[in-house]
Amino acid sequence: MRTKNVLGLREMSSEDILQILDTAVLMKPIMETKNKKITYLQGRIVTTLFYEPSTRTRVSFELAAKYLGATTTNISTSSSSVVKGETLIDTARTLQAMGIDILVMRHPMTGAPRLLEKHLDAIILNGGDGINEHPTQALLDIFTMRRHKGRIKDLKVVITGDILHSRVARSNIWGLTKLGARVAVAGPATLIPRDIEKLGVEVYHDAREAAEDADVVMALRIQLERQKSGLFPSLREYSMLFGVNERTLEKAKEDVLIMHPGPVNRGVELPSSLIDGVNSVIEEQVTNGVLVRMALLYLLTRKGEV
Amino acid sequence: MRTKNVLGLREMSSEDILQILDTAVLMKPIMETKNKKITYLQGRIVTTLFYEPSTRTRVSFELAAKYLGATTTNISTSSSSVVKGETLIDTARTLQAMGIDILVMRHPMTGAPRLLEKHLDAIILNGGDGINEHPTQALLDIFTMRRHKGRIKDLKVVITGDILHSRVARSNIWGLTKLGARVAVAGPATLIPRDIEKLGVEVYHDAREAAEDADVVMALRIQLERQKSGLFPSLREYSMLFGVNERTLEKAKEDVLIMHPGPVNRGVELPSSLIDGVNSVIEEQVTNGVLVRMALLYLLTRKGEV
Amino acid sequence: MRTKNVLGLREMSSEDILQILDTAVLMKPIMETKNKKITYLQGRIVTTLFYEPSTRTRVSFELAAKYLGATTTNISTSSSSVVKGETLIDTARTLQAMGIDILVMRHPMTGAPRLLEKHLDAIILNGGDGINEHPTQALLDIFTMRRHKGRIKDLKVVITGDILHSRVARSNIWGLTKLGARVAVAGPATLIPRDIEKLGVEVYHDAREAAEDADVVMALRIQLERQKSGLFPSLREYSMLFGVNERTLEKAKEDVLIMHPGPVNRGVELPSSLIDGVNSVIEEQVTNGVLVRMALLYLLTRKGEV
Repeated sequence: MRTKNVLGLREMSSEDILQILDTAVLMKPIMETKNKKITYLQGRIVTTLFYEPSTRTRVSFELAAKYLGATTTNISTSSSSVVKGETLIDTARTLQAMGIDILVMRHPMTGAPRLLEKHLDAIILNGGDGINEHPTQALLDIFTMRRHKGRIKDLKVVITGDILHSRVARSNIWGLTKLGARVAVAGPATLIPRDIEKLGVEVYHDAREAAEDADVVMALRIQLERQKSGLFPSLREYSMLFGVNERTLEKAKEDVLIMHPGPVNRGVELPSSLIDGVNSVIEEQVTNGVLVRMALLYLLTRKGEV
Repeated sequence: MRTKNVLGLREMSSEDILQILDTAVLMKPIMETKNKKITYLQGRIVTTLFYEPSTRTRVSFELAAKYLGATTTNISTSSSSVVKGETLIDTARTLQAMGIDILVMRHPMTGAPRLLEKHLDAIILNGGDGINEHPTQALLDIFTMRRHKGRIKDLKVVITGDILHSRVARSNIWGLTKLGARVAVAGPATLIPRDIEKLGVEVYHDAREAAEDADVVMALRIQLERQKSGLFPSLREYSMLFGVNERTLEKAKEDVLIMHPGPVNRGVELPSSLIDGVNSVIEEQVTNGVLVRMALLYLLTRKGEV
Repeated sequence: MRTKNVLGLREMSSEDILQILDTAVLMKPIMETKNKKITYLQGRIVTTLFYEPSTRTRVSFELAAKYLGATTTNISTSSSSVVKGETLIDTARTLQAMGIDILVMRHPMTGAPRLLEKHLDAIILNGGDGINEHPTQALLDIFTMRRHKGRIKDLKVVITGDILHSRVARSNIWGLTKLGARVAVAGPATLIPRDIEKLGVEVYHDAREAAEDADVVMALRIQLERQKSGLFPSLREYSMLFGVNERTLEKAKEDVLIMHPGPVNRGVELPSSLIDGVNSVIEEQVTNGVLVRMALLYLLTRKGEV
């Protein structure tokens, strides 16, 4: 790893990405033994600081740290008391002054971890910042694709849904294109960022068309609160036009992987037949999320050591 | 233990109950040393998933797990965002995919842990489901009675209060009758389930009469919010008619045990003179709760091992 | 240490204070190694029970306990459900019955830990009670002064702001005067307790005048909600009259220490130029807070051992 922090895949080299993926494979045996606790990170302090509610990502990081033997502490701040940038720096520096080694943070503001970067010696891991990046989610997604397809290069990966507000999509686009995948997005015109083609991404407004020859179809979680703001007409209409179902996949490759960052709104983004079907790797994504986070914690704390 | 999960005492055999009680005795020295941390469950992951607020039961399970050396993680979901059955399954499977071994859950819906049973390989421990069962509470109650009386068979155990809405009462009735106790309930007619006699329980509408010759009197916690729904007239009237006090106990055995699952509303279910009196084992129940939960965690994870 | 509990500095001897400060120095190497986890308190249970929201103090105690190898568990109760004294005793005794060794508590009611003292065998550490005392904050403040000035005796320490409602000020006054410091307070007349001179404290209504020859200036956090109650006119006016800035310090000693218990309202109690300036030890106070809490946990659990 050449970087001290992991803020996004935009600036991560493909070499670093591949090293993380390779290291994550080595973490699998630790999770599969009865005694899921080794001593790699004993006495290192991993703190989760979440300014948005999250169970899934928080617990995944917490368990990854604990499997490696680290000490953890969790801080959740209700989004109602979202702090200003300046206060965020003070909060992070306070935690650092208490001795923490790694700060895993989620914040509703794009660039929040970047803001901290120059103020903090502790390692920063971005657990999601606004609509910008969610790098560990993309790493686990890419890890999952690679395990099933043996490679990332030349895979056709289709991401469907609300691309505009999705940090998951954004991080996947950065990572996948770096590794040579062909990325397509499909969603309502109102929910696709302008100029996204400049990132080397194909744009479709019909998920079925996008899915032609797809190796991977990743349905994003719809933020139900967006509906009220008029960005899409109705859940039923959304589901019909942009949800992924068997018909969407008619022209996809037979062994297409069905992915979703979770939690799924069953019957909206995907029907249960696909979520629980043979092509789904949604649950495996969760396990791989722990592996990738273990790999990151390991690599970032072991820099310079042999 | 023949069962993988502990969902209730209704389906638990008396052999299994006795094995748990016997094992709990062996846990006492661990709690009594200065170093309350052994390695039996090192590297096993115990997660508490509580959809209802609870400090007492959550902390008891958490400490029981930690005394045995397990890794713990806690997830609390406010009752305002109570999830639907389908989502509960996805949540539990997600936690399992992250590597947890034991799921301790509390849920306002009767049967919630049962719903999970066929979807989960992880061990499930019911920490209370709706008005159905709270098996670890009943096990600690029975453990406490047995330690003081030397047996359960032929004991007269009187449970007073809101029987209808009490999972504590229900689990105690299943467990105690299996072990041969004579169980009586006393409470307002509106708060006693119809047909409860079919479970082999005697019904009284006068606590004093019920307490005649009682070996144990267990006062249930009154849910103060029930009062508004008109199920009982006033706290004072409830306390007079169904609260337990010295007069209620006049015909009870001299060494009658006073029990309460806690937290007690002092002066409502019981006066302080009884709560803090020589016959009270209310505080000991708390300690025994940790012992019984340690025993369960130990037995359920050691199945098939020698 | 002669005391079992640490409820305040009012009743702590100067010998005990000095022993704590000396022991805290010895804790520094533990925090400075990569493996911040020793086994001094292995298997001891430290519980934080906070009836007021706090991240800073709670995490500081939690990490201090974990660095020493203790098992921790956290209980936060929203201030909306603040419990009555009687219930507090039951809660604490319940935790004790579960096996906890040390209870760290914060409560909005003055004297809450004192109330528990005679009911609890577990060690009680006051993490702040109402407007009464916050002894560990004062100990870390005094520790910080002593490290920089080499002594406490004859130091001139000026505390500015809302003295009346500050448990930090109160604990510092007790501790500093015991160790021979000269303590001055400065703040609006409405926010200075009557009769405070009787504690041996000098009173100023002008911070600039108070700061003359000061070795230490400690700005208290302004409770923004007090403003509404009319105790001071406007933030801007407060900042001008009672905030500390470069002009306030013109007559202070050149090497005056700038302190604040945190979190600082930047631009209100202190300008960023001072918070981040060379005389500021605000961040070091945070680190020293962990050291002092480690020292306390160590000393209180090691009583009678060699």
